[in-house]
Amino acid sequence: MLRGRWLLPAASLALGAALVARRRRAEGDGAEGLLARLPVVPAVAAAGAPVLPGSGRTELTKYGLPGLAQLRSRESYVLCYDPRSRSALWVIEQLNRETLGGASDRAGCDFQEDDSVHQYHRATNADYRGSGFDRGHLAAAANHKWSQKAMQDTFYLSNVAPQNPHLNQNAWNNLEKYSRSLARNNKNVYVCTGPLYLPRMEPDGKMYVKYQVIGKNNVAVPTHFFKVLILEKESGEIELRSYVMPNSPVDEKIPLEQFLVPIESIERASGLLFVPNILKRTSNLKAITAGNKR
Amino acid sequence: MLRGRWLLPAASLALGAALVARRRRAEGDGAEGLLARLPVVPAVAAAGAPVLPGSGRTELTKYGLPGLAQLRSRESYVLCYDPRSRSALWVIEQLNRETLGGASDRAGCDFQEDDSVHQYHRATNADYRGSGFDRGHLAAAANHKWSQKAMQDTFYLSNVAPQNPHLNQNAWNNLEKYSRSLARNNKNVYVCTGPLYLPRMEPDGKMYVKYQVIGKNNVAVPTHFFKVLILEKESGEIELRSYVMPNSPVDEKIPLEQFLVPIESIERASGLLFVPNILKRTSNLKAITAGNKR
Repeated sequence: MLRGRWLLPAASLALGAALVARRRRAEGDGAEGLLARLPVVPAVAAAGAPVLPGSGRTELTKYGLPGLAQLRSRESYVLCYDPRSRSALWVIEQLNRETLGGASDRAGCDFQEDDSVHQYHRATNADYRGSGFDRGHLAAAANHKWSQKAMQDTFYLSNVAPQNPHLNQNAWNNLEKYSRSLARNNKNVYVCTGPLYLPRMEPDGKMYVKYQVIGKNNVAVPTHFFKVLILEKESGEIELRSYVMPNSPVDEKIPLEQFLVPIESIERASGLLFVPNILKRTSNLKAITAGNKR
Repeated sequence: MLRGRWLLPAASLALGAALVARRRRAEGDGAEGLLARLPVVPAVAAAGAPVLPGSGRTELTKYGLPGLAQLRSRESYVLCYDPRSRSALWVIEQLNRETLGGASDRAGCDFQEDDSVHQYHRATNADYRGSGFDRGHLAAAANHKWSQKAMQDTFYLSNVAPQNPHLNQNAWNNLEKYSRSLARNNKNVYVCTGPLYLPRMEPDGKMYVKYQVIGKNNVAVPTHFFKVLILEKESGEIELRSYVMPNSPVDEKIPLEQFLVPIESIERASGLLFVPNILKRTSNLKAITAGNKR
């Protein structure tokens, strides 16, 4: 059968399931709940958009919008979930001397499913088992010793992506440690971390994005990770350092500054924007790249 | 140099560009503008989320949220843009006897860049040139003869994805025609269309998502397309038909019903949800699949 032929390779398509299955939580419900908890209302909501009942096109979205940004605001981070990849698009943390202090212990923490995400789009611990990948924190656990709850929140699988174990335990860990050392020596460090899925040229001369997916839920394995550090210095100056590492073993002898990239590279590849938002807050911005490091 | 070695294959990373380049339009600004024009305020905004200045974590998003859902509400559709793929996540249209009538002519229409999207994340006509792919409409032009503006709006490249020419001109075109015939014989048809990036098993026994990207802006070429039809019948019954076609030549002699898939398959693979939203409006829902077509 034709449909069988091209659908079978796609294990993500679970066939034959009951259509109107009981659903634990609709996306829309989750979005409302989390926004009420979000400390800063994002731009789209803050606009106070008027309902326009007379516009004549109200009918168009009568049966809802099938997908919107899925923000989660937790003790230690704000996260935007990507239901297609079963992981985050980006996670923001704030590090400073206070958040680094404290006695919280990761021995008390376990990785857990994020049940605020619909079960169709959620990673589970079973997805990672036997995959050869670590459950790599995006917002790092050790950044949040100030509160056991904040640390535990970093263990939601929505804040995790499949990461090469060598990278996770060596060079990437060093980058996380470096972020904390910057936070100890500055007023604040805002850290934004996320996955990248970068294209590369294949022998046919064309560009392809290719990445593995693991487990029954097809959790996407990023090809690279980015980390953007926004430093607030005591002087008031804002310094920007942006890093990309491949999701493969990286020799930890290579200096971290070798992984500095222009922020524009991350903005183009990730579909995100950092600089316009920062420039709304300050004009005193200095970007650190391999060529102009202090 | 190491950085050169692993960054060079990724043409999406434009190196060495000025950091604080003049930017045409920040993402946040665009989102505010469009939401004011959106006929139905999406769930996240409608929640009327309170600003919580005393929550203690307001600082966390001080420098903004790097990316949120990018909704566009146009004459003929509502669209959610995916800045990473340079195309839409989904597009919704409403078809009925009125919107199908009219004398608008696609001879007067040209494909155009969507300049409401940041230039880093925008497809251009040049990206498609020589790629071997058609500029495949998601919301179809011929669905919107009722208004020249509505038809022209379907020519924004945000409503377009790289599509195999044979598919675009044959089997996919037949599916679009079928949607219109359903709209002529029912009260309303809500059509939601979008790309899929489905994994498949490679010889190493692992699952991979692999898709081409075209042009200087790395516009993603979907592996498949979905189309979800929500039929409002004169009787009040709601009927759901959901289709998936591969982005490759499809013999147009194969009956369209062979491309029916359970809606759950699309929901899992796309990261979107349809049924929970529909069930908020009606309990009189019938899903049409290959096994139970009328």
